[in-house]
Amino acid sequence: MGAKEKALVTDGRVRRSKEAVLAATFALLGETGLGGVSVDEVARRSGVAKTTIYRHWPTRSALLLDACSKLTARPTVPETGSLKGDLIALAETVAERLSGRWSSVLPSVIDAAERDPELAAVHAKLHAGMMEAFRAVIARAQEKGELDKRVAPSDLIGAIIGPLFYRRWFSREPLTKAAARAIAERALAAL
Amino acid sequence: MGAKEKALVTDGRVRRSKEAVLAATFALLGETGLGGVSVDEVARRSGVAKTTIYRHWPTRSALLLDACSKLTARPTVPETGSLKGDLIALAETVAERLSGRWSSVLPSVIDAAERDPELAAVHAKLHAGMMEAFRAVIARAQEKGELDKRVAPSDLIGAIIGPLFYRRWFSREPLTKAAARAIAERALAAL
Repeated sequence: MGAKEKALVTDGRVRRSKEAVLAATFALLGETGLGGVSVDEVARRSGVAKTTIYRHWPTRSALLLDACSKLTARPTVPETGSLKGDLIALAETVAERLSGRWSSVLPSVIDAAERDPELAAVHAKLHAGMMEAFRAVIARAQEKGELDKRVAPSDLIGAIIGPLFYRRWFSREPLTKAAARAIAERALAAL
Repeated sequence: MGAKEKALVTDGRVRRSKEAVLAATFALLGETGLGGVSVDEVARRSGVAKTTIYRHWPTRSALLLDACSKLTARPTVPETGSLKGDLIALAETVAERLSGRWSSVLPSVIDAAERDPELAAVHAKLHAGMMEAFRAVIARAQEKGELDKRVAPSDLIGAIIGPLFYRRWFSREPLTKAAARAIAERALAAL
């Protein structure tokens, strides 16, 4: 084998061991929440040595951030032609994610963030990623004059995401598309 | 000592040991969240025997429910004379609680509820208690004709509590009285 072939084989091995580590991390996150994810347990389940794991992710937090980011990809910016349409589309996306696996992991991230500053930074980064599309459609509407510039984006975002979170973790009502739509419409009507 | 005096001494001892158990449970809840509260650790910290703890609280869940209920007493029903005033008062009460110790314990209750049906029941009971005052002022306003009877109480509650939760655990903006008031006003304006 030449140097190029060797490099390709190594790349494949690295990719496979990284995938095995992330798969083990996902599985643990789902079963136990963040609290049950230790590098020891991930190494045991994935069959990848701890030293190899630490080569790719220098800290447990880095591994958790990477795994969580893959569980909850950033929403794309909708282009429906109106702020109302865009916000409804984003509310529906959030409602859909709150029905999936990520939503049973997130409370453990919030809980860990209360006590661990490094995980608080992980939580803040994940949340900022989730919010980017909301911020983009609100900024666009404010530039076009469709939305009053005095409206604080965070207030509008909280008025949509807050009630969705409330349904998921408190009232446990179904997160239907119709519910997401009604919440987005009420949030806009309140302004 | 007569039988009456003996009973009084016993009552005092029982009361003191129950208080010691609850104090140890509070302390652990604050430090570690729900996950760190085991009856073993509570016994060790309080100096009260496990058999005595189990005599008062037959299960770990019963102890947790009791401790959490004491950490977060039910809000009283406000009597301001208007639905708007009542909802603002309740929003301010929730904002105040979300600034206290309870708010760093609650995410661990939500997280545990995702995986443990017994703790899901504890979470639902605590939440129903918190919501009683909201439900009472909404029902009163609907009876008086101040609020349309077609409004689902849970939608109005979610539109107030959801954004407050969002500020506390996601955007981490301050939970001022002014913020609570503005959220309650927007929730009503949306109807």
